[in-house]
Amino acid sequence: MAVMKTDCIIIGAGFAGLACARSLEAAGRSVTLLEARDRVGGRSDSDTLGSRRVDVGGQWVGATHERLIELLDRAGLATHPQFDAGRAVLHLSGRRSEYAGLIPRISPLALVDMQQALWRISRLTAKARSAGDDPRGLARLDEQTLATWLRRNTVSRQTRDVFAIAARGVLGVEPAQVSLRTFVEYCARNGSLESLIATTGGAQDRVVDGSMHRLAEWLAGQLAASPILNAPVTRVVQHDTGVEVFADGRCWSAERVVITVPVGLRGKIDFEPGLPGPMAQASQRLPAGSIIKCHVAYDRPFWREAGLSGEALSASLPFSPVFDHSDPAGNHYSLVGFVAGDAALEYSARPAAVRRQAVIDSLVTFFGNEAATPTAYLEKDWLTDPWSVGCYVGVAAAGYYSRTRPYIARPVGRLHWAGTETAEFGLGYIEGAIRSGERAAREIAEQ
Amino acid sequence: MAVMKTDCIIIGAGFAGLACARSLEAAGRSVTLLEARDRVGGRSDSDTLGSRRVDVGGQWVGATHERLIELLDRAGLATHPQFDAGRAVLHLSGRRSEYAGLIPRISPLALVDMQQALWRISRLTAKARSAGDDPRGLARLDEQTLATWLRRNTVSRQTRDVFAIAARGVLGVEPAQVSLRTFVEYCARNGSLESLIATTGGAQDRVVDGSMHRLAEWLAGQLAASPILNAPVTRVVQHDTGVEVFADGRCWSAERVVITVPVGLRGKIDFEPGLPGPMAQASQRLPAGSIIKCHVAYDRPFWREAGLSGEALSASLPFSPVFDHSDPAGNHYSLVGFVAGDAALEYSARPAAVRRQAVIDSLVTFFGNEAATPTAYLEKDWLTDPWSVGCYVGVAAAGYYSRTRPYIARPVGRLHWAGTETAEFGLGYIEGAIRSGERAAREIAEQ
Repeated sequence: MAVMKTDCIIIGAGFAGLACARSLEAAGRSVTLLEARDRVGGRSDSDTLGSRRVDVGGQWVGATHERLIELLDRAGLATHPQFDAGRAVLHLSGRRSEYAGLIPRISPLALVDMQQALWRISRLTAKARSAGDDPRGLARLDEQTLATWLRRNTVSRQTRDVFAIAARGVLGVEPAQVSLRTFVEYCARNGSLESLIATTGGAQDRVVDGSMHRLAEWLAGQLAASPILNAPVTRVVQHDTGVEVFADGRCWSAERVVITVPVGLRGKIDFEPGLPGPMAQASQRLPAGSIIKCHVAYDRPFWREAGLSGEALSASLPFSPVFDHSDPAGNHYSLVGFVAGDAALEYSARPAAVRRQAVIDSLVTFFGNEAATPTAYLEKDWLTDPWSVGCYVGVAAAGYYSRTRPYIARPVGRLHWAGTETAEFGLGYIEGAIRSGERAAREIAEQ
Repeated sequence: MAVMKTDCIIIGAGFAGLACARSLEAAGRSVTLLEARDRVGGRSDSDTLGSRRVDVGGQWVGATHERLIELLDRAGLATHPQFDAGRAVLHLSGRRSEYAGLIPRISPLALVDMQQALWRISRLTAKARSAGDDPRGLARLDEQTLATWLRRNTVSRQTRDVFAIAARGVLGVEPAQVSLRTFVEYCARNGSLESLIATTGGAQDRVVDGSMHRLAEWLAGQLAASPILNAPVTRVVQHDTGVEVFADGRCWSAERVVITVPVGLRGKIDFEPGLPGPMAQASQRLPAGSIIKCHVAYDRPFWREAGLSGEALSASLPFSPVFDHSDPAGNHYSLVGFVAGDAALEYSARPAAVRRQAVIDSLVTFFGNEAATPTAYLEKDWLTDPWSVGCYVGVAAAGYYSRTRPYIARPVGRLHWAGTETAEFGLGYIEGAIRSGERAAREIAEQ
């Protein structure tokens, strides 16, 4: 077998891999970027809704996503604000209401309860942020789930339902599936819970004209060496003098290798010698959330006409959260949202027509009968995507954050690790993927 | 590529695969049994301690392990009782004590506290057992961890430490890493917590003369077609008319395929078409416990001479639980035990000499200075075993039992599933592996 030599091999051409390749090339290294899929972009991808290109994966530009914003500028890709003018819809306990601002209209008791819970989460987030590399004292946060914490720290079912909506929307998991530690660290590494759920000024601040996925393609096109597609890596062999990487019957060798695949899929690669124990087990300890992303197009923005922003939330309907995703030029009108958590497990396993109808039925409940007749529908089930097996990110269940996080980005000889799971800031977002790739490139430069 | 035809292909020659192959052959089917390792036995394996063959994997015959006992009888393999005459050693809060029977000698308050906790676990176990296929009402058990439950239901640190010892010893995890639901289901599917931790009459009732691994070899030798070793399956393609299985550059086709690999490693196989969403995600949702098994040989059974059984437990020392593993003929004396949970994560990543010394230091604390000078030492780190990545079994963290268990054994077209994780009884044990393999064979026979 002919062995192709290069300075660095990067496994995975998502944003982490693309950003890492860009940085390494800028530092004068030769890079081979291997991608299992037939496209670049990883958990960011696009498809056609009617005649319009939309993101079926990572889509939003957060207000604090500095690295992402800089790359979009360089690529000359314009963004437009996430539309959020008007009232949002909240469907709780079978009742539909409308509200303005970040806090839904719920009973006065529930409102006080929720404000208190948000304040407590905010305090825990500050604690997690300041703990930094000295996370003692946070052990109790990791041994309990968000669900347990909610039972103890809230009195209203409505408050717990709103938090369930948030956990599903932000992480793709049920409150029982995430440790309190993971939840507040996620908030800390993205600013705050409020910024995670906010549109303007928050994590859903802006949208890229013509899709975020164009940025991945632009990044790939800028590289000196094009990413090699359809090349799933099966084996990584580390020697004293370098590393050999095997994919699709071919072999490359390099001085350094960066692995950017989702942590939960690292186990698909055979490492020789084997990874250290805690690192090897990490692959089973950051399960991805359960997310089906759906776009629904209409010929008119009837929700806007009714004074609604298009944002809608429900604890019991399968399609939540939902946002307006019309293009700013006024040529296309659509809503975008997620089937998340338990609902995704249920509907992923059901026929496509049943799933589509459940999404549309949710929209009818949110926005009325006009929602019943879309002009186009598009969905992406990330659970069944073989190179993601879930989205948006690996989420540590109770007991696993403190026992996994310290290991997932620690270099193993000539192997370095990136991917949004390993990010210090922007964790779970494209921003985090970019930062993690640039961090891995720095590790190599410092050798 | 030449395609080899057979009635059934079984992936994995552990006890599940071997038992399944035996049953299918008995029903007149031709079977091809593919194994990734260079040996049969899966998470059961043997090695040499001094001049004696011992199990470095699954070892004990439980009192209720009917299928295992029957197969041992057929194979003509004798067993001997787990030695447990004398007092056990308990090391808690830095203090060493000795006790007789199942319940350690702790303060009267802690004793009452622990008895109450055991009684409550026993009630929950009964609830789980009677819930059977109707597990409503158990949702709250799955949203909390064993650690959370212990904080709420115990008053004594000693009680919590004893439960931590049990979680590590029985499952290889910390109490924070297992949902209460998983814990009590594990008890229910193995009789009770008491039977799980007991020697005589419990899960550690007897030991096979000359090692349990001999039974795996005997089962393999009885098959019409020998297992094919060094054949890691990478791809399973399901057609309308059959299934093609690819391993090591070869291809087999069959009417039915049984996958017996640990649930956490199913993701190493590429399935075409892809698995249903919840089934695909299951691979990331049953992380294996953290277990390093160690044998330490001595020229004399000095612990017996001191009236001790060799059983020793500690919440803070890395080597716990420990048992006497001398051979009944009196030719060899040794202790066997586990570095489990957090201690395994810590010591797996440290140099072998440090790990060995930590094990011996634990034994010195338990049994005195004579333990400092063993005649032989043997260890098996299951975290770094590439075809197990942990032991004994996949353990659902909080929020995942109820969302994973219903899917892991559900046939997908021509694909059937076995392995101890899928067992109704004997879950986590060789008994469960055997039963799961026989159940998968019945599913195929009933087609």
